[in-house]
Amino acid sequence: MEVSTFFIHITIILFFARLLGEMAAYLSIPPVIGELMAGIILGPSLLSLIEPSDVIKLLAEIGIILLLFEVGLETDIMRLMKTGFNSTVVALFGVTAPFVFGFCVSYYLFALPFLTSLFAGGTLTATSIGITVRILTDMARHHSREAQMVLGAAVIDDIIGVILLAFLYDLSLGKGVSLQHTSQIFIFVVLFMALAPMAAKFMAGVIRRFDNISQIPGLIPTTLVSLVLFFAWLAHAVGAPELLGGFAAGIALSRRFFLPMGLAVHAEPSFAHRIEENMKPIVHLFTPIFFVMVGLSLNLKAVNWGSSFVWIFSAALLITAIMGKIMGAFFIKEDYYRKWAIGLCMIPRGEVGLIFAELGKSAKIFNEDIYATLIIVIAMSTVLPIFAIKWFYTRFDRKLDSSHESSGAE
Amino acid sequence: MEVSTFFIHITIILFFARLLGEMAAYLSIPPVIGELMAGIILGPSLLSLIEPSDVIKLLAEIGIILLLFEVGLETDIMRLMKTGFNSTVVALFGVTAPFVFGFCVSYYLFALPFLTSLFAGGTLTATSIGITVRILTDMARHHSREAQMVLGAAVIDDIIGVILLAFLYDLSLGKGVSLQHTSQIFIFVVLFMALAPMAAKFMAGVIRRFDNISQIPGLIPTTLVSLVLFFAWLAHAVGAPELLGGFAAGIALSRRFFLPMGLAVHAEPSFAHRIEENMKPIVHLFTPIFFVMVGLSLNLKAVNWGSSFVWIFSAALLITAIMGKIMGAFFIKEDYYRKWAIGLCMIPRGEVGLIFAELGKSAKIFNEDIYATLIIVIAMSTVLPIFAIKWFYTRFDRKLDSSHESSGAE
Repeated sequence: MEVSTFFIHITIILFFARLLGEMAAYLSIPPVIGELMAGIILGPSLLSLIEPSDVIKLLAEIGIILLLFEVGLETDIMRLMKTGFNSTVVALFGVTAPFVFGFCVSYYLFALPFLTSLFAGGTLTATSIGITVRILTDMARHHSREAQMVLGAAVIDDIIGVILLAFLYDLSLGKGVSLQHTSQIFIFVVLFMALAPMAAKFMAGVIRRFDNISQIPGLIPTTLVSLVLFFAWLAHAVGAPELLGGFAAGIALSRRFFLPMGLAVHAEPSFAHRIEENMKPIVHLFTPIFFVMVGLSLNLKAVNWGSSFVWIFSAALLITAIMGKIMGAFFIKEDYYRKWAIGLCMIPRGEVGLIFAELGKSAKIFNEDIYATLIIVIAMSTVLPIFAIKWFYTRFDRKLDSSHESSGAE
Repeated sequence: MEVSTFFIHITIILFFARLLGEMAAYLSIPPVIGELMAGIILGPSLLSLIEPSDVIKLLAEIGIILLLFEVGLETDIMRLMKTGFNSTVVALFGVTAPFVFGFCVSYYLFALPFLTSLFAGGTLTATSIGITVRILTDMARHHSREAQMVLGAAVIDDIIGVILLAFLYDLSLGKGVSLQHTSQIFIFVVLFMALAPMAAKFMAGVIRRFDNISQIPGLIPTTLVSLVLFFAWLAHAVGAPELLGGFAAGIALSRRFFLPMGLAVHAEPSFAHRIEENMKPIVHLFTPIFFVMVGLSLNLKAVNWGSSFVWIFSAALLITAIMGKIMGAFFIKEDYYRKWAIGLCMIPRGEVGLIFAELGKSAKIFNEDIYATLIIVIAMSTVLPIFAIKWFYTRFDRKLDSSHESSGAE
């Protein structure tokens, strides 16, 4: 491909991602839906204007890795400890229920292959932190009691989702579910989680020291991007998906991760702030390319819309996706209405689900129909709860407030 | 190339660019020299660790375009008007002398082909704004009278250099020096310069308006990068080098370019600040890739070091490069010592020279020997004046100060 062709493709991708993202935001739909739509419009489904070239795929890959880096960066381990037990219960059931039910629906009801069913279940597991935070902020509810719990659960959720992804990814390489490989992945994750703080301590220290003596600008963007890509490479080298590397790098550099290591957290803020300030534009530049890429990869013309399978399977998985998450909230000791609020807020899927779907597709575990079904389910499970949550808060806001007071008086 | 291989390559490039850049800065050598060295070490000249793949070349290309965007962004047309006549004289002679003498030396003394000689002359034309600003700042001389003049001249210099580049580029496509093509390029540049403010007015207005209503983060990095790449594509479409598009976009968005259009300049600062804040990390991320790429493209093993040609040609061009710039300062009415200060400060070559050399090489106008010679000349003409300027200011600082007072009393 000629260089200037590539430039105009990137221009078009970024422009349409922004345009449809803003339009979606204007209609109170998560922008990510707009970015997917941009890909669908520009791709083989509609205009066939842009064919996903290797270079664009590569930039999209950097996009996911940087996005996972940002999710990791925003993962606050201290907050998790505070929201504690309830969040963990919501997260565990909220991951397990959609995964198990999603698997069962796919495997037993629709007789899909074992691995495909596992991936379909996996796609339904993780709540989107970004979308959840966004909805709660839009509702001016992000400081509420249920918001704290939902945030904690979404964070744990994402970690479990990513580990599950690593697990299923390994499985998809045809290694089977032998105890050896399962424990290998487990050991890898444990090693990763154990080594991350040390790596953080060492590397953040080196970068911070350089930051003081550096005489040329751009230290943070260059060192951090190379750090993230190095972790991505390392993850791949150990057999995990590259994005887990980005996530590990993010967790390692997150503000609160320094604390347990005895590093002075009050010395960090300015450096942490500089990291965010420098990385955000780069993350924002690359991530839309990923979501547009997902849309580009989706060939709606190739989907058999006449097939009852796509329709019934979509409906079945969507019900599973919604019920599974709501159920999770009913295993904790809380007021009735708050359980509903938490359950509804846990429904939106997003990035991790799309990554699952994308991985399943590129590993040829999902065919065009199943991939399209999952994209539809993710899109619907992202859009529907937004309206449901709006309706719920308009209807039951007072009941939640009063129950909040009563629980505060306990 | 596998995705993870690409990641580790980028990691290595960014890491070594930073390492050698910082080391260079520590030794008071311009970091760009360190970045070139990183490329030389990693490339075929030494370790042969990284082969410049198409993807890396593409990212390097984005690097130059973004660098030229930044140069354009920092091009202050108002300042030019103030430093006025003297800067223009220094710039015009400082471009003409090295270009003409460089051409003559190459064409008549070394009997090189016509086009090659023109490109060799072109490589010597533009003073590096970045390096010049840096040196003057390091000397705490960036507010001096001569600094104002040098800055003005370096800016004009760069514009002429880029136009010359466009001209020679067109020439290199084998179109010859017909009046039609010369005027075509001239018209294109004039059109570009005439349309840029309108484009700026329109696009900056749209982006700023969106910036107010945008509900999702990342508006500036995505829209500006797509704007820059669009301009690059447009430049290519009209037959100019892509980097001219980046430069035009930068000029169009520079703080002072709004003023003549009647747009309130005092309403801009916060938006202009946000542009800089968001674009700098991205520019800093991509530009080192370009300079490392230049080093990677340079195969010192392939250079015939035994050839007296390389040595004599290097020496001849270096003298031309130094004398040509110093001469430029002696055509203005100024104190004797200030003329020397201005002349010395004009010597450092940098980005534009490297871009010339790179273009000449990729268009097969320069063979390995000539390319290597030019890189050596650029490197030497960047490093030598730094020591010369240091020495000059230590020795003649008082004479400059006194002449400054006397000129102030005129």
